[in-house]
Amino acid sequence: MNDALKQLSDRLGGIAYGGDYNPEQWPRDVWDEDVRLMREAGVNLVTVGVFSWAFLEPRPGEYEFGLLDEVMDLLHAGGIAVDLATATASPPPWFSLRHPEALPVTADGVRLWHGSRQTFCPSSPAYAQAAGRVVERLVDRYRDHPALALWHLHNEWGNHNAHCFCDTSAQAFRAWLRERYGDLDGLNRAWGTAFWSQRYGDWAEVMPPRATTAVANPTQRLDYWRFSSDALLALHRREAEIVRRLAPGTPLTTNLLVTLEKKVDGFALADACDFVSVDQYLTAADPEAHIGLSLDADLARGMGAGAPWLLMEHSTSAVNWQPRNIAKTPGQMRRNSLAHLARGADGIMYFQWRQSTAGAEKWHSAMLPHGGTDTTTWREVTGLGQDLAALAEVRGSRVESDVALLFDWNAWWALEMDATPSRDVRYLDLVRHWYEALWSLGITCDLVHPGSELSGRRLVLVPSLCLTTDSDAESLGTFVRDGGHAAVGFFSGVTDENDHVRAGGYPGAYRDMLGVRVDGFFPLREAEAVRLGDGSTATVWSELVEPRGAETLLSFADDPTCGGPVAGHPAITRHSYGDGVSWYVATRPDADGLREFLARVCEEAGVTAAAEVPAGVEAVRRRGPDASYLFVINHTARDVSVPAAGVDLLSGTAVDGKAEVRAGEVLVVREHAGTSPEV
Amino acid sequence: MNDALKQLSDRLGGIAYGGDYNPEQWPRDVWDEDVRLMREAGVNLVTVGVFSWAFLEPRPGEYEFGLLDEVMDLLHAGGIAVDLATATASPPPWFSLRHPEALPVTADGVRLWHGSRQTFCPSSPAYAQAAGRVVERLVDRYRDHPALALWHLHNEWGNHNAHCFCDTSAQAFRAWLRERYGDLDGLNRAWGTAFWSQRYGDWAEVMPPRATTAVANPTQRLDYWRFSSDALLALHRREAEIVRRLAPGTPLTTNLLVTLEKKVDGFALADACDFVSVDQYLTAADPEAHIGLSLDADLARGMGAGAPWLLMEHSTSAVNWQPRNIAKTPGQMRRNSLAHLARGADGIMYFQWRQSTAGAEKWHSAMLPHGGTDTTTWREVTGLGQDLAALAEVRGSRVESDVALLFDWNAWWALEMDATPSRDVRYLDLVRHWYEALWSLGITCDLVHPGSELSGRRLVLVPSLCLTTDSDAESLGTFVRDGGHAAVGFFSGVTDENDHVRAGGYPGAYRDMLGVRVDGFFPLREAEAVRLGDGSTATVWSELVEPRGAETLLSFADDPTCGGPVAGHPAITRHSYGDGVSWYVATRPDADGLREFLARVCEEAGVTAAAEVPAGVEAVRRRGPDASYLFVINHTARDVSVPAAGVDLLSGTAVDGKAEVRAGEVLVVREHAGTSPEV
Amino acid sequence: MNDALKQLSDRLGGIAYGGDYNPEQWPRDVWDEDVRLMREAGVNLVTVGVFSWAFLEPRPGEYEFGLLDEVMDLLHAGGIAVDLATATASPPPWFSLRHPEALPVTADGVRLWHGSRQTFCPSSPAYAQAAGRVVERLVDRYRDHPALALWHLHNEWGNHNAHCFCDTSAQAFRAWLRERYGDLDGLNRAWGTAFWSQRYGDWAEVMPPRATTAVANPTQRLDYWRFSSDALLALHRREAEIVRRLAPGTPLTTNLLVTLEKKVDGFALADACDFVSVDQYLTAADPEAHIGLSLDADLARGMGAGAPWLLMEHSTSAVNWQPRNIAKTPGQMRRNSLAHLARGADGIMYFQWRQSTAGAEKWHSAMLPHGGTDTTTWREVTGLGQDLAALAEVRGSRVESDVALLFDWNAWWALEMDATPSRDVRYLDLVRHWYEALWSLGITCDLVHPGSELSGRRLVLVPSLCLTTDSDAESLGTFVRDGGHAAVGFFSGVTDENDHVRAGGYPGAYRDMLGVRVDGFFPLREAEAVRLGDGSTATVWSELVEPRGAETLLSFADDPTCGGPVAGHPAITRHSYGDGVSWYVATRPDADGLREFLARVCEEAGVTAAAEVPAGVEAVRRRGPDASYLFVINHTARDVSVPAAGVDLLSGTAVDGKAEVRAGEVLVVREHAGTSPEV
Repeated sequence: MNDALKQLSDRLGGIAYGGDYNPEQWPRDVWDEDVRLMREAGVNLVTVGVFSWAFLEPRPGEYEFGLLDEVMDLLHAGGIAVDLATATASPPPWFSLRHPEALPVTADGVRLWHGSRQTFCPSSPAYAQAAGRVVERLVDRYRDHPALALWHLHNEWGNHNAHCFCDTSAQAFRAWLRERYGDLDGLNRAWGTAFWSQRYGDWAEVMPPRATTAVANPTQRLDYWRFSSDALLALHRREAEIVRRLAPGTPLTTNLLVTLEKKVDGFALADACDFVSVDQYLTAADPEAHIGLSLDADLARGMGAGAPWLLMEHSTSAVNWQPRNIAKTPGQMRRNSLAHLARGADGIMYFQWRQSTAGAEKWHSAMLPHGGTDTTTWREVTGLGQDLAALAEVRGSRVESDVALLFDWNAWWALEMDATPSRDVRYLDLVRHWYEALWSLGITCDLVHPGSELSGRRLVLVPSLCLTTDSDAESLGTFVRDGGHAAVGFFSGVTDENDHVRAGGYPGAYRDMLGVRVDGFFPLREAEAVRLGDGSTATVWSELVEPRGAETLLSFADDPTCGGPVAGHPAITRHSYGDGVSWYVATRPDADGLREFLARVCEEAGVTAAAEVPAGVEAVRRRGPDASYLFVINHTARDVSVPAAGVDLLSGTAVDGKAEVRAGEVLVVREHAGTSPEV
Repeated sequence: MNDALKQLSDRLGGIAYGGDYNPEQWPRDVWDEDVRLMREAGVNLVTVGVFSWAFLEPRPGEYEFGLLDEVMDLLHAGGIAVDLATATASPPPWFSLRHPEALPVTADGVRLWHGSRQTFCPSSPAYAQAAGRVVERLVDRYRDHPALALWHLHNEWGNHNAHCFCDTSAQAFRAWLRERYGDLDGLNRAWGTAFWSQRYGDWAEVMPPRATTAVANPTQRLDYWRFSSDALLALHRREAEIVRRLAPGTPLTTNLLVTLEKKVDGFALADACDFVSVDQYLTAADPEAHIGLSLDADLARGMGAGAPWLLMEHSTSAVNWQPRNIAKTPGQMRRNSLAHLARGADGIMYFQWRQSTAGAEKWHSAMLPHGGTDTTTWREVTGLGQDLAALAEVRGSRVESDVALLFDWNAWWALEMDATPSRDVRYLDLVRHWYEALWSLGITCDLVHPGSELSGRRLVLVPSLCLTTDSDAESLGTFVRDGGHAAVGFFSGVTDENDHVRAGGYPGAYRDMLGVRVDGFFPLREAEAVRLGDGSTATVWSELVEPRGAETLLSFADDPTCGGPVAGHPAITRHSYGDGVSWYVATRPDADGLREFLARVCEEAGVTAAAEVPAGVEAVRRRGPDASYLFVINHTARDVSVPAAGVDLLSGTAVDGKAEVRAGEVLVVREHAGTSPEV
Repeated sequence: MNDALKQLSDRLGGIAYGGDYNPEQWPRDVWDEDVRLMREAGVNLVTVGVFSWAFLEPRPGEYEFGLLDEVMDLLHAGGIAVDLATATASPPPWFSLRHPEALPVTADGVRLWHGSRQTFCPSSPAYAQAAGRVVERLVDRYRDHPALALWHLHNEWGNHNAHCFCDTSAQAFRAWLRERYGDLDGLNRAWGTAFWSQRYGDWAEVMPPRATTAVANPTQRLDYWRFSSDALLALHRREAEIVRRLAPGTPLTTNLLVTLEKKVDGFALADACDFVSVDQYLTAADPEAHIGLSLDADLARGMGAGAPWLLMEHSTSAVNWQPRNIAKTPGQMRRNSLAHLARGADGIMYFQWRQSTAGAEKWHSAMLPHGGTDTTTWREVTGLGQDLAALAEVRGSRVESDVALLFDWNAWWALEMDATPSRDVRYLDLVRHWYEALWSLGITCDLVHPGSELSGRRLVLVPSLCLTTDSDAESLGTFVRDGGHAAVGFFSGVTDENDHVRAGGYPGAYRDMLGVRVDGFFPLREAEAVRLGDGSTATVWSELVEPRGAETLLSFADDPTCGGPVAGHPAITRHSYGDGVSWYVATRPDADGLREFLARVCEEAGVTAAAEVPAGVEAVRRRGPDASYLFVINHTARDVSVPAAGVDLLSGTAVDGKAEVRAGEVLVVREHAGTSPEV
């Protein structure tokens, strides 16, 4: 996978820089200015054609490539490479009119109409055929165009249409289930249809989980989520097949949404790309949104097995789709972009080049804002272009991390079904909580699939991985037995592949490894906080843990007035297992408590920070064949001093053991040999 | 009604103990263990087949009874009696596929699909026929089986499908209305269709209250609720007719949901059973959920005119369908179960015997949890089995109470229509508020229908009974005139049978009896609290009361800054009426204020507590022909001392005037003659 | 427009007084009492027949006018004039049954059924024809009836059915768009369909903004709101055409909902009436609801270019459709009614005469309540009748105001689309916030359309007028250049007629006039408050303002810990432009801050209060050809003294320079010549 991005990167001669470019929104005379300003800003790559289907094929079967020809030529003449989109993300109105049966339908039976984007049923044969035709024509026409550098399949697969409940989807779901289970007996077993008299006697009876009277069958729902993700994956593969057949020389990718997209399994889509590219947007309401950014970046890297990746979209400032679209303050965009770089991005791109004046995203920021070039944003965009030029040598180097955090879309889906012990157990909340504790310790981790290779890691974190397959559980057990460290959060390993509860006592798949047995779950009340033995607090969850080999590290306070429903019983345990150690956390500790716990775990596991930096300062190291690079990002409002030695690449000055990083600023140091620990 | 339960109870030779048993969920080899463990726990009755339709009739018209035959035989061999369900609660998928027109439809026109349970339209002839067929076959086959002890009709009628708006329902609604009103003139009068130009000129124009543009006609809505409840009652009667025809010797019941089910009139269904059985689940978010339990139990008893009843379902610990499914702490299940017993239950049963590992209720607790027999829950279950054996003699005795609290589903429906004076006026909130005040005074009451016999009571409570029929109002008036006491809450008696406002001044039907006239309603603002003359506070409601014969007991504070919109006017009045006394409460007093008021009312009415016990301790007395039994349940975290004399049935030791009840524990005393006041 | 109301007023010989009268709800014998009590209360005008269609045409094409004949005659005999409604607001059930295609359909495709009111699609030809027929018959029958004084078209156009998404609506929408844009190229440009591949190639592809997968096209949505408002306007015009053709001598109006109705452009409907009439209801949850009343009254006046208007509906006490229907306290109804009079109403009417005992509005207060004549409400109703008689001479006089506040439904629609910078930017919130500051300064303003004539004003206020047409912007610019003062709120002028962002920097259309350029928007976080330089606070919004000619009056605090994202930058600016002055407010100041700012603006602009009165006291002046009238309304709980000289019309006593107005009371003074400043 790495080679494809290296190929692109070498062609660009540096870090990719640019954004989505939608020239069809603008009169012809604006295009020349666009190219001129792109050059001024240091842009070397733009994504073209994401929403161009209605222009390329204005009427069914009639293609008009004139506009795109001109744009491609103009960009090439300006030295800008093109990431050419397959244009399938938004079928034109004529498609919906001709194929109303291809419009998506909600669980309530509401048909969704065209007028926004992605208004198609993922299982629709009509869509697949129409999309295939336009992709074939497009690829055929531009495969040899000198501007072409990358194929961009679709756009944010499934962001708006992942789940469709129409009759076509029902039929496709049945075919998927047949493939998975072979016969109805298998289906009935997997779905546990003996309960509530749901046994299926004929495939025609099987439906997507449309609106029903009471709680829907959870495995039916889980399988429907899997099927839906697979349906999109199949469309992606169909496009990839065309591109690879007609234009084998050029890499392809699609822009994944990392944790912003619950409904599509990002690992599976990533595997079907030549390299990983992602879109990442800050959660405006989150005062620590930069930590969410790091998490997403570490997931992007984890999706590509640690290889560099491409940041396909982020924003220069506010977006338009959140309740309050908080703008970035001066310097924030630069910190965000360079944090992505620090965590393995080899390209920094935006949605979009020029801010729209009409349409649904006109209030979404862009590289060139409504106000034009005499704006703070434009000055920051050109400044960043210069920074990236100065950092060109970083590309291709790999981020150092010996910690893995297991992340799984299947577990996410299962955890947030209806009728679970507590609606306060939210997957991203828990993953972020663990991640944030690690982040504040300065430790870099990869977010990886539970089935990925763990050997070579020192530590594996497992926040509330409810659904765990036998093989994934065994893989973690082997890792620990072989000397690794694993820290596991509550409600992990309790169900199997089909989301059936593992009998014999919680936490099911991890019981032996953890050396504990849980007598029962005691979710906490809304906003309830209980005290732990060391005075810290915990929320959301507690459970009655019986050590069966493990030692108790910390208990719920032995006082019924504050210790909660399992006062006095273990909250955190430690278990020597084989040559390694496993830890179990039976609640949601407060931030300080979790950080202290993970600090101890890291110490035992021999995991260290990239550099010793003050709170609120981020330090990450990338290592290339010839040098290592220490990134230090100061998210605080005060100047700080950090240990570093080498060359400050942004200023070109030497750093001798200690560097000042001013409030809000970023330091990137090419380190002297020996400054950083060799791995 | 009493005889049927006595017949069951005598057969079991003690208090019924057990739960729902769904063997179809488990492999055959588990069944033997099930029976062995049931015996170990003291189980003597299990409910079988509630969700077995898809097994009994796997294909339309093809019946397979092998599994059930074996289960029945096995249970019988193990000495476990069977409450055999009619299996109609969840039609199999083949039924929905064959009869899509029988799927329920929401007010918005959304068809609800199979995949959970109760996915049928209550007015569907196809459902009624299909259900009738399976019931006939089932009853015919097992009517003479030696394990059979009770028939269990359907399951929680209407819990998920009470309201259907399909065309079939529309037709059935019209038939029901024709029956009620004879002709359209009657309908037009009752519905007040002169308003908003709604006059109906043809029966075909009459519809269920489907989604509409503005506020729907309130009497149309009310009648639709009545019709819907009656439609389910008709299905129940249809099943009962089959059972009584084919198996006349065995009693039948259905599990009512007490206050958990708003849409079905529990009194009407109860009347169509041989004895009352109910399901009762705690509201996890309610820190005083045990008071809600008592209320439901007192309603169960009121449904059966004071006779013993059967607790068909409750939970050993957490359920799975609330936002946060709080588990029971050690001892809580026992207190809950024995509180039901105290309030008249002659059987204690659970959903379900063995906890599922798949399906929608896999996180619902059970008698035998996921963790097996080495769990706190299992130890409590076996312990309770022993307790119930020790209390066997209590069965058949009746709870002492000379207070009635009027409860009415029709009034509930009317009170919570759209476009009423305030959405903060919630029926269950007010009923619970009054009930809780009484509970905290240690006084036991029956929740009864307003039309039930009141003579013999000392006191009748009427919390906000908005809709009151003429005859029910007259019945209460007679009760007071004949020397009874009645305390009436605000917004009572204001509308008639058709929810038309009674002209001439509020509170309509009760104006003369109460000796007041209300000039106007003054609902309070959200979260507004006003002061009363004695320093207590009140919320939700106030009104301008003019005494017309009544004396003012307490006024709103005579200070516009805190007394609210009717500062200085009466809040609580007292009126001598005939030989009795009536009281009116024109607001929602705070808990202390209401308790003090009811204490005074009880004192005047000569109503006393079962025993003098500290706050948070529950005391109830059951009286049999030969002995009385004092139940004392300590819900507090401290040991208490209570007055009691006789034999402690759980320990077998003597109690001489005073007993210690430890924190969380329960005491049941067979009282010496003369210890408790004779009634 | 003025003449029509004068004609009515002269006929009544005084201020109109009365309410909706629905005799069809009551037995015949009640009617005589009604007329007797109307006379007792001083009622001189009632609205009849609003919901009478089902009575007038009980079966399709069969008309029965007997009831209405009798009512008209009876009222006439009693000296009560009639405002006769066209009866089209609620089609009878037979209409829906015969024309199911005329039932409205939601964006989700849910068909809404009859059973409430206004259940018709505004674009339905079947409705237009059926309504036309009944109006023709009605007008033809009563055009010469001596009781007839006014035609009342429909009722609250579009209150429940403004937006319909059915196929008929889709077709009508296309016709409207063709008319607006001529061809698809125009449509594609206006809607910006180049974005997201939405380009339309065939009119058949164009749809109302039905439920879709992502954010709908904003101009499509805006045009759909415009079309929907126009569809209702067309129905109104159709009725008006019939009335004017058949009964040219009698004025017509319809009851507008002022700010209560977002979906219908009140200015357009007002223009199609002979004079303005409005319904005004207090927001019960608003402790300062009387300010909202004033705002609505000032809008009613603005809709009629300053002429007197008719208050067609308000309530004597509580309504029935709010969450908590707070009743009016003694005196509040009188203050409300006289405040309307003060602000230009020449008639004071209610919904409704006699309170219903059945139907959706039975809990809505009325002139004659459930309790009858021995009620506070009835005493206040008769008292007010006497007050109005004493104030008869006021009618026809005009309210003094030299301030205009620009109000626009189009801007409202655009501002509250999805995907704007912040959902906290709510149009009515901002309009009310500015209005309230002015109200508290005692200054009267007219709410007028941005396209209305501004010359003659001293000051124009522009709270957040996001969408501004070129001509409206030019009009304001000219006003300022010619010496006027204008104060403009943030996010004004940023988009054009099609809601496209005006390029070149915010605030677009007003940039030059204001002498500022905004580098970027910085919406604030939820509940975030920032400090301004003078210690006041601000919420919701901030932006980076660069003065380009303007001077900075007040900045965000120059302290990043409290000054927010643009700490130290301008918050309020002042710009001399031509002969006038413009001011810009780049945030939402707190109430005190905004009042202080507007006080300064008013001072510079030479705008003064009607009278110097204490806080919480309202003073407004009407001026007739022969005298001026000072209204003083004391909304406080304390007695106050105010400067006034003339005759107290309510008591008939002289006022010499100073008058006491007791808590909750109202003073109306016919002023001595020279007492009030001549205009």
